[in-house]
Amino acid sequence: MLQAVGIVSEYNPFHNGHLYMLEQAKQATGADVTVAIMSGNWLQRGEPAAYDKWQRAHAALLGGVDLVIELPLFSAVQPSHLFSKGAVDLAAKIKCRWLAFGAEHPEMDYQKLIDHQPKNPADFKRFDRPYASVFQDYLFEKTGIRLNQPNDVLGFGYAKANVEAGRPLSLVPIKRKGSQHDATQIDDVSPIASATAIRQAVVKHDLKAADRVVPKGTMGMLEHDRMLTWQDFWPFLRFELVESPIEKLHQIYQMTEGIEYRLKRAAIKAESFTEFLHLVKTKRYTYTRIQRLCTYVLLHAVPSDMLQAAGYVRLLGFNAVGQRYLNQIKGDLDVPLITKITDDVVADTIQMDFRGGMLTQMINGLSQDYYRHPIIME
Amino acid sequence: MLQAVGIVSEYNPFHNGHLYMLEQAKQATGADVTVAIMSGNWLQRGEPAAYDKWQRAHAALLGGVDLVIELPLFSAVQPSHLFSKGAVDLAAKIKCRWLAFGAEHPEMDYQKLIDHQPKNPADFKRFDRPYASVFQDYLFEKTGIRLNQPNDVLGFGYAKANVEAGRPLSLVPIKRKGSQHDATQIDDVSPIASATAIRQAVVKHDLKAADRVVPKGTMGMLEHDRMLTWQDFWPFLRFELVESPIEKLHQIYQMTEGIEYRLKRAAIKAESFTEFLHLVKTKRYTYTRIQRLCTYVLLHAVPSDMLQAAGYVRLLGFNAVGQRYLNQIKGDLDVPLITKITDDVVADTIQMDFRGGMLTQMINGLSQDYYRHPIIME
Repeated sequence: MLQAVGIVSEYNPFHNGHLYMLEQAKQATGADVTVAIMSGNWLQRGEPAAYDKWQRAHAALLGGVDLVIELPLFSAVQPSHLFSKGAVDLAAKIKCRWLAFGAEHPEMDYQKLIDHQPKNPADFKRFDRPYASVFQDYLFEKTGIRLNQPNDVLGFGYAKANVEAGRPLSLVPIKRKGSQHDATQIDDVSPIASATAIRQAVVKHDLKAADRVVPKGTMGMLEHDRMLTWQDFWPFLRFELVESPIEKLHQIYQMTEGIEYRLKRAAIKAESFTEFLHLVKTKRYTYTRIQRLCTYVLLHAVPSDMLQAAGYVRLLGFNAVGQRYLNQIKGDLDVPLITKITDDVVADTIQMDFRGGMLTQMINGLSQDYYRHPIIME
Repeated sequence: MLQAVGIVSEYNPFHNGHLYMLEQAKQATGADVTVAIMSGNWLQRGEPAAYDKWQRAHAALLGGVDLVIELPLFSAVQPSHLFSKGAVDLAAKIKCRWLAFGAEHPEMDYQKLIDHQPKNPADFKRFDRPYASVFQDYLFEKTGIRLNQPNDVLGFGYAKANVEAGRPLSLVPIKRKGSQHDATQIDDVSPIASATAIRQAVVKHDLKAADRVVPKGTMGMLEHDRMLTWQDFWPFLRFELVESPIEKLHQIYQMTEGIEYRLKRAAIKAESFTEFLHLVKTKRYTYTRIQRLCTYVLLHAVPSDMLQAAGYVRLLGFNAVGQRYLNQIKGDLDVPLITKITDDVVADTIQMDFRGGMLTQMINGLSQDYYRHPIIME
């Protein structure tokens, strides 16, 4: 029996830090198989993936991941607690024994935080600060633990979701290595840089800097594939915000407190996505929250679209080890394993992934769902 | 007292045929003032105006029109009977004594056609032919009059709307001169060419051919302004059709008989607007009807947006004669005369014109409503 470790990932793009994390996950668990639970074309911070899901899955397979499955968009583009829950549930569905993830403080006592959660999170509603920071202050007061680093917050989410699901997984937090999560520059010595810094280097056409901090497979992607940014989608976003009646915008998922008026005014005025974000920003709304909201607008996503649990496993690619693992588990799956895209699959199952993929396809011209089969690495 | 003749127009672009028609209208009526009732940024056939409403109003004023007012979009982008009604009502509101329009057969007995209209137009619903052609066959059978030329059909609409409104206007059909309405080439001798042929010449960068068939004022526009085509709006249309749920598309004005499924499938597949139209076309749906439907999709227009009567007169420009006329009538207007655009005017009054204008603005970068004042010709 092969045992698998799931790795929650965006691989945007897959770099040496991810490679290190992959090794650490195998070493810490002794797993036979690595399964990337990878976000598709839209990411947790409400951003388009810089490369599409096929390009990123391919780079991950070239980097040594055995199996890549798509974290459905309705989980992938969510605040941390829903993102975490989606990832945990999917890892359990694909029968992983472990779930590995990067963390700033892997030693953190998640259980203590879980035990001291507030009873009424709604009490934290304030108009001058984001919910997350008020929530974090509360936890710090109760536990002395400062939960404010992005991957620690996700880690707490995995722990909580795992408890709620009856602990189907052993959690394996792995200390992040190398530069700061959001460092925007590749430094001259470290073999590890942040994904943000690598994307910035691509924007600046400085592929030489990127070459030292990504594996060969990723380098091929950076050299040949079109990188996507929010600015590519800005015309669509602007169109939708300008042309939709306010009452339609109001129906969008997480469109609360009248922010639709603010979004519409800013879209009429702004000439670029950066200018738009700047016009919309308030003390209460973080850039991440605004970007996620914009993603929902592009997707025409209403609450019922986004508050789903994954009823399927979408396969993006695998190598020989991944294939053996699939053969081992496929008889036991209690959800469909999706490898072929038909009209019915699009309409009934992967609706939101399809909409997210079409957004990308309308920019990069590459089909994301129809006619695409899982990548098989020889 | 100045007496005005209203001229229903799209001026897409204003050319020698329009100049001829303007002279004929003055001569036939003895009017002191010419008032263009001009479509804004979207036209009756469901097409974007090749130049924006300000550029076209300016060319019309340079061509000698005294006053240009905007036919509201909810009348301008409609089948002929609603288009005609909107134009007649607006001409009456601005106190025109006459309404002039081009016609293939100005001698046609509109009253006879009106008297023989079918009682139950719904009986003409057929799935293998457009409504209009079945309707025209019926009229021919009853009256011996063949009503199948586009401007004759509109003329019949004006006559009918005028009767229904209590005959506020004297109708002045003027025989179209020069080339066929839809000729796509400028010939070598005639000083008059169709607007279609002129736009084609611009597409082919053959401004020399256009020079002979348009007045100087229009030539400046053709030389300096960006011409718009449906292909410019195709990315927005595709985005909207692909990303909107079917049930949202179903709510769009005139989205009947399940054609939303057909539009969505075609949008997912097509790479250009031409390819898209070709995929959608059926025996029952004319290209014009499909294009209008696509315009409504871009505008997020539901029936209540489009089934309105003009409660305002939007001024685009005037010369000294036009100004005297405005001074004469403005005390008598029973609707607001809109010259300045505020948030309230956009939200409460010109909502649809604004949405149509923003579509143009997102392509040509020129504000269509905010900060724009009527053009004053010295």
